[in-house]
Amino acid sequence: MAYIATSLPPSLLPLKTSLARPRRLPASAAAAARSEEYFSLREYMSAKVERVNKALDEAVPLRPPQKIHEAMRYSLLAPAKRVIPVLAIASCEAVGGEEALAIPPACAVEMVIAMSFIHDDLPCMDDDDVRRGQPSNHRAFGEHTALLSGCALLSLAFQHVAERAAPLVPAERVVRMVAELGRAFGSEGMLGGQLVDKESEGKADVGLEELKYIHECKSATFFEAAAVCGAIAGGGGEEEVGRLRKYARRVGLSYQVMDDVLDVTSTSEELGKTAGKDVASDKAAYPKLMGVEGAREFAAELAERAVEELALFDPPKAAPLYHLARAIPCRKGKGSCA
Amino acid sequence: MAYIATSLPPSLLPLKTSLARPRRLPASAAAAARSEEYFSLREYMSAKVERVNKALDEAVPLRPPQKIHEAMRYSLLAPAKRVIPVLAIASCEAVGGEEALAIPPACAVEMVIAMSFIHDDLPCMDDDDVRRGQPSNHRAFGEHTALLSGCALLSLAFQHVAERAAPLVPAERVVRMVAELGRAFGSEGMLGGQLVDKESEGKADVGLEELKYIHECKSATFFEAAAVCGAIAGGGGEEEVGRLRKYARRVGLSYQVMDDVLDVTSTSEELGKTAGKDVASDKAAYPKLMGVEGAREFAAELAERAVEELALFDPPKAAPLYHLARAIPCRKGKGSCA
Repeated sequence: MAYIATSLPPSLLPLKTSLARPRRLPASAAAAARSEEYFSLREYMSAKVERVNKALDEAVPLRPPQKIHEAMRYSLLAPAKRVIPVLAIASCEAVGGEEALAIPPACAVEMVIAMSFIHDDLPCMDDDDVRRGQPSNHRAFGEHTALLSGCALLSLAFQHVAERAAPLVPAERVVRMVAELGRAFGSEGMLGGQLVDKESEGKADVGLEELKYIHECKSATFFEAAAVCGAIAGGGGEEEVGRLRKYARRVGLSYQVMDDVLDVTSTSEELGKTAGKDVASDKAAYPKLMGVEGAREFAAELAERAVEELALFDPPKAAPLYHLARAIPCRKGKGSCA
Repeated sequence: MAYIATSLPPSLLPLKTSLARPRRLPASAAAAARSEEYFSLREYMSAKVERVNKALDEAVPLRPPQKIHEAMRYSLLAPAKRVIPVLAIASCEAVGGEEALAIPPACAVEMVIAMSFIHDDLPCMDDDDVRRGQPSNHRAFGEHTALLSGCALLSLAFQHVAERAAPLVPAERVVRMVAELGRAFGSEGMLGGQLVDKESEGKADVGLEELKYIHECKSATFFEAAAVCGAIAGGGGEEEVGRLRKYARRVGLSYQVMDDVLDVTSTSEELGKTAGKDVASDKAAYPKLMGVEGAREFAAELAERAVEELALFDPPKAAPLYHLARAIPCRKGKGSCA
């Protein structure tokens, strides 16, 4: 007990302090880190999400020109799970960095997520009216404001890292983060994936390989950018950054597969966005290609393969990453913590 | 003559080598630098534009996913004057830096110019069919491709500086450039200005102050970002960077005033874009507020005030900046070198 108490971070200390029914203690800190009795993902997430929301709020103060900042804040600060920015923090902590170092890249990735949602909902893209439980940005502010505020969030992502990370970490790391974010979001990453995705609509012959490519570009890139930038900010070495990159790609794809599953199995209210969209638009999606159960199994398999990449890390420090990966195949939409 | 021959850069050596009619030589290198007989802006521009075009071509190779890169290249490589990227190079050289150091930020600014044109022409913005003498991006590739390829150019601008400037200049300078570009393009710069501009359409009471704000945000920011990043890349000190910032703001505003003038006085063919647009959309513009001649005079005054900021610099090194500012109030659209 003494060993666990001194070697585990506070988030891994036993949650239930009652001694009425003594529980068997894990044999080691490693086992404790992987036990749900000794680590609460919900508590970890909730503390980090609060931190991220505060930083996002501060990153885009309401100032002139008023309307563009209102529109940016509307989408950026809408209630959301913030799994991806938390992943940046957890990756930073996994390599031994402090939480504060990961906040700038965590915010940057969340800004680009908001931008991708704003643009995805535009009439010339998916033409959607609801996002994160509220009217989509162009429904609330008009189309040209949605276009411009989305771009402003993209631009701010890079600026934010350059301005806010620079005093905390060496300039070389900031430059690596900017380059990484650019590769993740750009024409060979998220934006290229959005275009391939859009053009695949209504195509009858989209196979698993193409779908995997689209999902990796569109979604897994966010997970990857977050984990890699978090690790860079925290001072991770090449091997650590490489492992977390693989971990995040798999977790990201697992998340997206579950997104497809939830699109089929949930109501719009549960999702906070229009449900059944993929089916309605005859869009290729995992449940269509491998059935709902097959897709669930694939998501679980991806999560297990992600966890394998964590073997190198100090188990207590990597505990949040372990539990995050494991929680994704079990997620149930809006209410779940992943 | 010997003094001039050894102290002037090649671009300042006399253009006409004929000795048939000996001309009076300027009394000093400073005078030579400001003499049009001893400096050809056209030759300087043409050499730099070639260098910039080559770098832009290499920056966006045609690769999968094919369509987004085709669309990016279509707008980025369309024939253009490239005044702004050349300004980045000239500013770098004015502080004593080599041309090569300014190429990455020069390309970055040109990428964002292309992005702003693509998005400006979209149906939800100005809904324009022609740009730089060819069908606008969404007319050629469709609306969603135009949206995404514009964003990809914006993202690439930051990535390009991080990847290409980093081996040439210290990381601290790269971080400063990324922050500067973000401020110039973002919600308080170009993108915010585009929104205020769009919202001012049809408003009867747009005054000179508001118009100046719109033009400074929308256009002068590009000049400012280019000059400042060029100076940072070249290793300029705070005083030099500050002077070039002021110089560029004035040159940028002068350029935009002349743009308004040309919109009224030229044909679409001369401009390479739809002429008379501002009048047709009842958009506030300088000729409307101060008359064509008044606007021309204002542009000339701004250029003179820009030139005042160059007093600090070595005249031969600052010669391109001097001549560039002077050429702007005389520009005549597509064919002119400014």
